[in-house]
Amino acid sequence: MGGVTERDHGTGTDPTTETPAAYDRDDGPPAHGSDFLQLDAGHAPPGGKADWLVRQLRRAMADGRLTVGSRLPPTRVLAAELRVSRGVVAEAYRRLTEDGHVEGRRRGGTVVVAVSPAPPSSRPPAPIAPERAAPDSLFVGAPGPDVFDALRAAPSRIDFTPGRPDLTAFPRSAWLRAERAVLTGLAAEHLGYGDPRGAPELRRAVAGWLARGRGIRVEPDEVLVVAGTAQALTLLHPVLAADGIDAVAVEDPGSLGTRQHLEYGGLATPPVPVDDDGVRVDALRATGARAVLLTPAHQFPVGVVTSGERRRELLRWAADGGLIVEDDYDAEHRYDRPPVPALRGLLDDRVCYLGSVSKLLAPALRIGWMVPPRRHRDALVAAKRFTDLGNAVLPQLVLARLMESGGLERQLRLLRGRHRRRRDAMIHALAGHLPGAVVHGAAAGLHLTVTYAPDVPDTELAAAALARGVKVQPLSWHRQLPGRPGLVLGYAATPAGVIAEGVAALGEALRALAA
Amino acid sequence: MGGVTERDHGTGTDPTTETPAAYDRDDGPPAHGSDFLQLDAGHAPPGGKADWLVRQLRRAMADGRLTVGSRLPPTRVLAAELRVSRGVVAEAYRRLTEDGHVEGRRRGGTVVVAVSPAPPSSRPPAPIAPERAAPDSLFVGAPGPDVFDALRAAPSRIDFTPGRPDLTAFPRSAWLRAERAVLTGLAAEHLGYGDPRGAPELRRAVAGWLARGRGIRVEPDEVLVVAGTAQALTLLHPVLAADGIDAVAVEDPGSLGTRQHLEYGGLATPPVPVDDDGVRVDALRATGARAVLLTPAHQFPVGVVTSGERRRELLRWAADGGLIVEDDYDAEHRYDRPPVPALRGLLDDRVCYLGSVSKLLAPALRIGWMVPPRRHRDALVAAKRFTDLGNAVLPQLVLARLMESGGLERQLRLLRGRHRRRRDAMIHALAGHLPGAVVHGAAAGLHLTVTYAPDVPDTELAAAALARGVKVQPLSWHRQLPGRPGLVLGYAATPAGVIAEGVAALGEALRALAA
Repeated sequence: MGGVTERDHGTGTDPTTETPAAYDRDDGPPAHGSDFLQLDAGHAPPGGKADWLVRQLRRAMADGRLTVGSRLPPTRVLAAELRVSRGVVAEAYRRLTEDGHVEGRRRGGTVVVAVSPAPPSSRPPAPIAPERAAPDSLFVGAPGPDVFDALRAAPSRIDFTPGRPDLTAFPRSAWLRAERAVLTGLAAEHLGYGDPRGAPELRRAVAGWLARGRGIRVEPDEVLVVAGTAQALTLLHPVLAADGIDAVAVEDPGSLGTRQHLEYGGLATPPVPVDDDGVRVDALRATGARAVLLTPAHQFPVGVVTSGERRRELLRWAADGGLIVEDDYDAEHRYDRPPVPALRGLLDDRVCYLGSVSKLLAPALRIGWMVPPRRHRDALVAAKRFTDLGNAVLPQLVLARLMESGGLERQLRLLRGRHRRRRDAMIHALAGHLPGAVVHGAAAGLHLTVTYAPDVPDTELAAAALARGVKVQPLSWHRQLPGRPGLVLGYAATPAGVIAEGVAALGEALRALAA
Repeated sequence: MGGVTERDHGTGTDPTTETPAAYDRDDGPPAHGSDFLQLDAGHAPPGGKADWLVRQLRRAMADGRLTVGSRLPPTRVLAAELRVSRGVVAEAYRRLTEDGHVEGRRRGGTVVVAVSPAPPSSRPPAPIAPERAAPDSLFVGAPGPDVFDALRAAPSRIDFTPGRPDLTAFPRSAWLRAERAVLTGLAAEHLGYGDPRGAPELRRAVAGWLARGRGIRVEPDEVLVVAGTAQALTLLHPVLAADGIDAVAVEDPGSLGTRQHLEYGGLATPPVPVDDDGVRVDALRATGARAVLLTPAHQFPVGVVTSGERRRELLRWAADGGLIVEDDYDAEHRYDRPPVPALRGLLDDRVCYLGSVSKLLAPALRIGWMVPPRRHRDALVAAKRFTDLGNAVLPQLVLARLMESGGLERQLRLLRGRHRRRRDAMIHALAGHLPGAVVHGAAAGLHLTVTYAPDVPDTELAAAALARGVKVQPLSWHRQLPGRPGLVLGYAATPAGVIAEGVAALGEALRALAA
């Protein structure tokens, strides 16, 4: 037998490969050199290995490769990798300890506590820069693509940014318990590359959730797990392009965030006015757009519920070849009105449904789902595959457990009680501090929209509020068409007492500007 | 004072909003109707509410909205939502229990155990379909965009698919401990929307990891956390397009998976031959491409380490205006050779570095990082923002802890020992069962590439192996240029004994085909 040989056969050979015979020799660990700083003791002078190692470590501290807090490898490990005696490494660490560079911390290992005076050319350790440095300019001019990052990074005492549930209610213990159960029972193969459509367990759980709570009957195979609604919109870009769709009509007022996502994908976003019954279908037809993004259950930001007659009009428009993208972003949170089933349940081949846990648990989880019309499914799976090969598996399985066990429903009931009290506190405070303001959309959701009487631009009011430490979004950010100034005020993430204080500050700001 | 009033001010009013006065009346829970199946007891005949509820639940079981395993809400909760007495709900559940539809399970609640005979129009509960139904055609013709999904879904006894570390070694306890610590210490605001660049804690940890282990000195601000290398490539598409780059040269042989990602983005992928020193820079120049995707530390699939002279040639090419995308996919796993620092450490404004934990911990985590040239950073952050608003936060913080505590380095040392033994087992088995085969790239990584003597197409060999229950990738999948047939054999995820059995089956398959 020829055995396994290593010869040149054109492309594809590897000079570093050895024959099996070489591996059979038991001549110590064959790997040489350490990944740690790419040290190779072959460069050390004989008899001066500890000196050499001290020099290498000092240099790494000086040039920034080792920073304060970095951990040195255990002496045993580094000695083996460098093929030096353990005493050489211990001696080097001892000398660095004596001159104050490192410190031994029993089980914490050996840690860098001070770095050498940097040579002039090296950079000082830079602080992590904020995402955008100038909150002063936040409300000046048209909002740019990083405006929400900049708003989030702006310091404030009180944050009325909409779109977040009560984050202190996140079920940390239940999440951890579910994760322990998942990790205990998980076959190792599920830690490999997975199904780009999402874990079957979660798709099944979402299908049940939608059937019970949103009036949508789907098979698990029709559900695509995505990294939130933001990703769902991005995945739609190539699918819409393939259909020759270059414009998606949007509600006006309507979410700036989702509009930015569509525009980033090169799509036009013609605005369609919203009235008391929902989006105006006559105006939608007039845009000529073949797709529309809607929030039928609780219009963002003004909170209209699309009426029955308007739903029928919309379905007729869709039956003529239109595509409805249904952003069901906070439909689960309702207080004073009956549940509104999703449009997707009525017209499954013309509605692409989007949902997420951002408003049920936490936006930081980045888990959502889409239920597209059948004809778009394969293209969306391909888009998801090439975007990220599918969502991370562990959080999907944890969420599936919370959905199947009833834990997510309990969470929703808990949130509903809290949010309702906070909403009431905000309405009460607005009555006291912004007399004449009109509240919109209070029957459901996580935010209120208020319009107010004085003729003060809402961007100026938002800037003045931020100067007083209160973060709000101006309603005009969410408009393309002219309309009354206003503010979008998230209440769900803020305790009632703080809400009162924040609204008082808004009132002061408005009075000061109107004076 | 006018108080908060609800009037029509053109667009943006909401007929469902009530004045604060209405909320002050304590007239019971104002929400009416239940999200659960959108039930509204207003539709129930007086005196027949239990009958009505039983009918509604039976109908939902018949039409698929309630499937076996679905949980009914607690009687107390459903009664409150429907504004009926708890006895009505209990009576309905009792009758469904008696006729065998549901079952009470103490703490598990009331669960559907059998559904009514479905009416003819309703669909049977469909099984979750495999991602692609026909493994027979897997190795026929050019591999399509879903080929890796299809390969993964194909049943097998032994799986030599490359690219996965030993998944049984995933540090489940350490992960869970770190997650507990993260959840205990986490401020609630970090559960909201986050920095699209990634959590500062992880960017800091990755910067330290790259400085210590890969010879790359970066500030945390230069690190962008992404959902794996697959996403990194997708994020590059708009950035390259903005630079007028419509082709990214690739190694040949070279990863089919990464090539598919580039092609999905509309980029051409001219092949550049690889020889014993790495990619041929003269051939790269000849393509005219202004960008190239490389695996310099351990070329995929043949395992060549780019030589010092070739590195210098590459850097000269890049200095002339070329962009190197450095896919450092498995550089941490090396056995018989010194560490190879990343190219990014040598030329930071022409190299975009990509790394991930897929080969260190698990692909299912979907966490990776990129360190782009400074001029591409803002565009990549925008691309990440609009793709998914940033990676999920909790797993980032858990990983940061594992990196900072030395846990990830310990994991790597553990894996290195195991993988080395598995590699040796595979080489030994190949010597016995595929005499005459040539092994490539064994000094590092998670896979071997073998080329073999008989003139049997490797797709036929892979198909014959799969028929024998052994899953392998044909080398020709990873080629655009003609070359010897071969197989890419992942060993890291398979125990030594199973490796021997799988390689024996490969030998049988090859002998049968060559006969």
